[in-house]
Amino acid sequence: MILLSLFAAAQAVAASPPKSPSELVEAAPASAWRDIPPEDLLVMTLAGGAEVTIRLAPDWAPAHVANIRALAGAGWWDGTSVNRVQDNYVVQWGDATERKPLPADVVATPVAEYDRPARVLDLRRLRVRDAYAATVGHAGGWAVARDGASAWLPHCYATVGVGRNLAPDTGSGAELYTVIGHGPRHLDRNIAVVGRVLEGIEALSSLPRGTAALGFYDRPEQRVPIVRVRLGTAISPAPAWQYLDEKSPSFAAYAEARANRRDAFFNRPAGGADICNVPVPVRRKP
Amino acid sequence: MILLSLFAAAQAVAASPPKSPSELVEAAPASAWRDIPPEDLLVMTLAGGAEVTIRLAPDWAPAHVANIRALAGAGWWDGTSVNRVQDNYVVQWGDATERKPLPADVVATPVAEYDRPARVLDLRRLRVRDAYAATVGHAGGWAVARDGASAWLPHCYATVGVGRNLAPDTGSGAELYTVIGHGPRHLDRNIAVVGRVLEGIEALSSLPRGTAALGFYDRPEQRVPIVRVRLGTAISPAPAWQYLDEKSPSFAAYAEARANRRDAFFNRPAGGADICNVPVPVRRKP
Repeated sequence: MILLSLFAAAQAVAASPPKSPSELVEAAPASAWRDIPPEDLLVMTLAGGAEVTIRLAPDWAPAHVANIRALAGAGWWDGTSVNRVQDNYVVQWGDATERKPLPADVVATPVAEYDRPARVLDLRRLRVRDAYAATVGHAGGWAVARDGASAWLPHCYATVGVGRNLAPDTGSGAELYTVIGHGPRHLDRNIAVVGRVLEGIEALSSLPRGTAALGFYDRPEQRVPIVRVRLGTAISPAPAWQYLDEKSPSFAAYAEARANRRDAFFNRPAGGADICNVPVPVRRKP
Repeated sequence: MILLSLFAAAQAVAASPPKSPSELVEAAPASAWRDIPPEDLLVMTLAGGAEVTIRLAPDWAPAHVANIRALAGAGWWDGTSVNRVQDNYVVQWGDATERKPLPADVVATPVAEYDRPARVLDLRRLRVRDAYAATVGHAGGWAVARDGASAWLPHCYATVGVGRNLAPDTGSGAELYTVIGHGPRHLDRNIAVVGRVLEGIEALSSLPRGTAALGFYDRPEQRVPIVRVRLGTAISPAPAWQYLDEKSPSFAAYAEARANRRDAFFNRPAGGADICNVPVPVRRKP
């Protein structure tokens, strides 16, 4: 009887269907998760109450992130609006008049922060061919691209970047956008990437598309008012988010499963996954 | 004076800013455009009047496209609905009850049309590394991926595919979806791709996201009614669309500019462009 039971148990294990990427993430132990500090979180509240939570990337664009923290601290975005929604490209927000004075502690013309030295990174490589970089992978909870000595945050869905005019202007950070379509990687290293939307992007991606040039709204009344934008440190209780450590076995299993789907729906695993199709899993801290 | 004038003209040419990809497409001569036959066009009208125009791919999924033509001919989709909107993934439409009988000339269980022999293709290669295929390029007005002897239409933004249940079911074509996020290329060769949205995708991509599992709408009243779906041949006057021939010099200039943006905004050309970032240009026939 025991032998039979053991055999049945072994059979059950063998027959259990391979886990999907999200099931593997859900199964990750607490030790695989890393806290995101509240000063790296930005919460934007839109008219109607929808909230968009962004993780900032101070290691990647320190001058622009310092500006963004100062703008949020001053309540500068309160009463501004979402002004541009271009299909398969970006949603952009800020001061539509482009005349609102910046707070005194905001640097109007920061240095270009389009990439940084790759040598400081502890990169977990993703072994996949990439159209835009020699190497891609993950580091510190970010998807990363690398070419020679230079590394940068690639433009994937939900990436947040700094709107700017023609170079050498790099933008102050007062005008931000997020990607709502196929990763426009040609923007990589041409714009300062400052973060990534963790939650609530559907409040932006489902907005009506603008019909003026570049997807700007034609009429002021089409703009979506921004009630407020606050840093995590200014919110009580502070929002608590975590990312899955790319060095954890759980992340390895997740990334492998993203490249080789074996759950019941799939017939043929791809054998690889483009960097934008391996977003770093995040969650609210339980 | 003449010398000076000539010199000034030469200077003006040298100083004229490089054209953007869309400017290069606009400059393409009439000879670079190819007609899309009206029997390859499908027009879906949503409640409120928005229209979505799809180009069908009969060379890539003949059995499924034959079904789709029969379904449109029977007015089968009229009164069905958009039932699923999953952020950064797909919008799906069809009969929410899954009980509506199929017309007699629709094959309920077509063969799997997930790829086809590559040897028949006259592929214009795109010289870029791809995470999912050995080779990518364009043929017959389609973005194409190829691996060894097999070729297929990759899942890019606006790709239209056939919803199905678990394999070996391939779907009849009565349930269709389109991509509204980063190209989910892991679906390549796991689903029959039947076409591409040419115009009006924003009527789908801007819909409220569904909050049930997989982005399905929770409540029937959230579904977006489909007024009608017709083949181009059943519409008067027939819709007339064209695509830019991938063998034309204009297409070469466009593809090169997509990979190497030199218009005024850009500092650093990427040197390559992923296949989903080189969509085949289309236009209404002038």
